[in-house]
Amino acid sequence: MSDTITKTFIQENTVLLNDYLKRHLPEDIANEQLSSAMQYSVLAGGKRLRPLLLLAMVKTFGGSINESTLKVAASLELLHTYSLIHDDLPAMDDDDLRRGIPTNHKKYGEAVAILAGDGLLTLSFEWLATAGLNTNTTVKLTRDLAQAAGAAGMVAGQVSDILGENKQLTFKQLKQLHRQKTGALIKYTALATNDIVNPEVDNQKLLIQFAESFGLAFQIYDDLEDVVGTQQALGKAVRKDANEHKNTYPGLRGVPQTILDLKKCVQYCHQALSKLEKNHVSTELLQGFLNYFQLDEEEK
Amino acid sequence: MSDTITKTFIQENTVLLNDYLKRHLPEDIANEQLSSAMQYSVLAGGKRLRPLLLLAMVKTFGGSINESTLKVAASLELLHTYSLIHDDLPAMDDDDLRRGIPTNHKKYGEAVAILAGDGLLTLSFEWLATAGLNTNTTVKLTRDLAQAAGAAGMVAGQVSDILGENKQLTFKQLKQLHRQKTGALIKYTALATNDIVNPEVDNQKLLIQFAESFGLAFQIYDDLEDVVGTQQALGKAVRKDANEHKNTYPGLRGVPQTILDLKKCVQYCHQALSKLEKNHVSTELLQGFLNYFQLDEEEK
Repeated sequence: MSDTITKTFIQENTVLLNDYLKRHLPEDIANEQLSSAMQYSVLAGGKRLRPLLLLAMVKTFGGSINESTLKVAASLELLHTYSLIHDDLPAMDDDDLRRGIPTNHKKYGEAVAILAGDGLLTLSFEWLATAGLNTNTTVKLTRDLAQAAGAAGMVAGQVSDILGENKQLTFKQLKQLHRQKTGALIKYTALATNDIVNPEVDNQKLLIQFAESFGLAFQIYDDLEDVVGTQQALGKAVRKDANEHKNTYPGLRGVPQTILDLKKCVQYCHQALSKLEKNHVSTELLQGFLNYFQLDEEEK
Repeated sequence: MSDTITKTFIQENTVLLNDYLKRHLPEDIANEQLSSAMQYSVLAGGKRLRPLLLLAMVKTFGGSINESTLKVAASLELLHTYSLIHDDLPAMDDDDLRRGIPTNHKKYGEAVAILAGDGLLTLSFEWLATAGLNTNTTVKLTRDLAQAAGAAGMVAGQVSDILGENKQLTFKQLKQLHRQKTGALIKYTALATNDIVNPEVDNQKLLIQFAESFGLAFQIYDDLEDVVGTQQALGKAVRKDANEHKNTYPGLRGVPQTILDLKKCVQYCHQALSKLEKNHVSTELLQGFLNYFQLDEEEK
C-alpha cells in the first residue's frame, strides 16, 4: 500500500521537479557555454532522491508542496549535481560516464566543468535565498545546507574518499566517510523539513534519526550496486571502487556482511517511523522510500 | 589627509580581519588535510581589499565594525580566496605562485585544491548565515553574494576569460568580462553595505556607481601591473597575460590608452564621492582607497 502511494508521489513530484529545474535554470544568463554545461548535468536526469525525500518529509508533517518548497528541494538537486560534476573530474574519480551520458568534463572540458560546478553550488544558495520562505526559515536553511555540504560534511567526506584510496580505512573511519560524503546531505532533508514545518521536538529528532540511517543505507546500497550492478542499469561505470582501491562496505566487510549492515540500517529507519506513527504521524509515504533498498534476492 | 585616515583604517582593520580569519577558520573540523589547505590560501595574506572596502563603506554610512560586520567581510574574503584557488588550477590559468607562495594545488594536489575551494565557497555562505545580523538583512546578503559570485557574475567572467584566450575580444566584450570577473564581487561591497546600513536610496545608487567604477579600475590596474610590475612586488608571476594570450586592456588598447581608461574610471569614482559629499556623507575614507591606483609616473 505504502509502495503505491510512494510510487505515485515520486512519479508526480519528479515531473514537478524536472519541470521546475528546466524552467528556472538560466538558459543563457551571461555565458552560453556555462549555462549549457550547468543545464547538461542537472537535466540529465537522475533519481532526484534528495529533493523527493525532502518533499515527502515536508508532506508527512503537513507542509505543502508549492513554489517555495519546490525551489528549496530543487536547490538541493543543484548542489548534489555540482558534487557529482566535481567528483567525476580527472583529478578526483576520473569518470567518463554519469547518468548514462558523458561526464561534464568529457563534454565541456575540465575548466568549464569545474566552473559549472561552482556555478551550481552558488546558484543553490541563491535559490534558497529567493524561495520566498520567511526570512527566519531561510537563514536556518542556508546555515544547515552550508554545514551539510561544506568542510565539516560532504566536502570533508570527498577528501577522505580521495585520500583514502589505496589505504585501508578502519570500519569506524569508513562509516564516518559515508556519513560525511553521502549522509550529510541526506540528513539535511530532515533538518530542512524541521526548518520549514517545525514539528514537535520529539518528532524532529525521530526524523533526523530516520534520515541518518537512510543516508548510511543509501551509501551501503550504492557500494553494493557497484559490485553487483550493471553499467546499463546504473548509467555509470561499475566495478570502479575495487579498481580504484576505494574503501567500501563490500571491500571491508564482504558482501554477505554488507547486506546485513544494510538491513540493519533499514531496520533503524523503520523503527524511527514506527515511533513517529505512535506520535500520530502517518509515515506511509516515507515507508515506501525504503523499498529503494530492495536486494535482487528479495525481488525474485 | 584622506590618505592618512585610510591608511590607518586599512592597517587596523587588516589586523582585525586576519585575526578573525585565523580564529574562526576551522583548524581540523573533519579532515586535517582539507582544513590545512583551506587555511593555507586564506591565511597567506593578500590585500584584503574587498572586505576592507566593505567595512569602509559600512563605516562611511555610520554602521559599526563589530563581530557581525567583520564576519560578513571575512566571508567575502573566503569567497574571493576560493576563486583564486580554482583560477590557479592547471585546467584554468595553471599558476604556480600566488600571494608569494606556491599555489594551493602545487602544495596540496589538484583534488584537495578543488575541494578546498568548494569548502571555502560553502563556508562563505555559512558565515553569512551565522553572522548574527537580522534575518531580513542576512537573506538579502545571501542573495546578493550568490548573484555576484555565480553564473551571472564572477563564474561567468572566468568562463569568458578562459574561453577567450587566443581569441580577440571586442572592447565591449572585454569590459563585460572585467565587470563579471572582478567587478561583480567589488560591486557586492556596495550592495552588502546597502543591505546592512540601508542608506537613502539616492546614496545607495551613488555607492553602487562608486563600486562599479572602482571594480573596473581595479581590473584595469591589475592588467597594467602584469605588464609593468615585478613578480617580487606582486607575489605572482608577471607577463602571464600576454604569454597566455589573455584579453587585457593593455593588449587591446595599448598602455597609454589603458592609463587614460584607468584615470577615467578613477574620475568616475571621485564624481560619485563628490555627490555623496553634497548629500552630507563624509567620504574621506573612501577617497583614500583611490590612492591604490597610483601609477609609478605619479609617485615619482
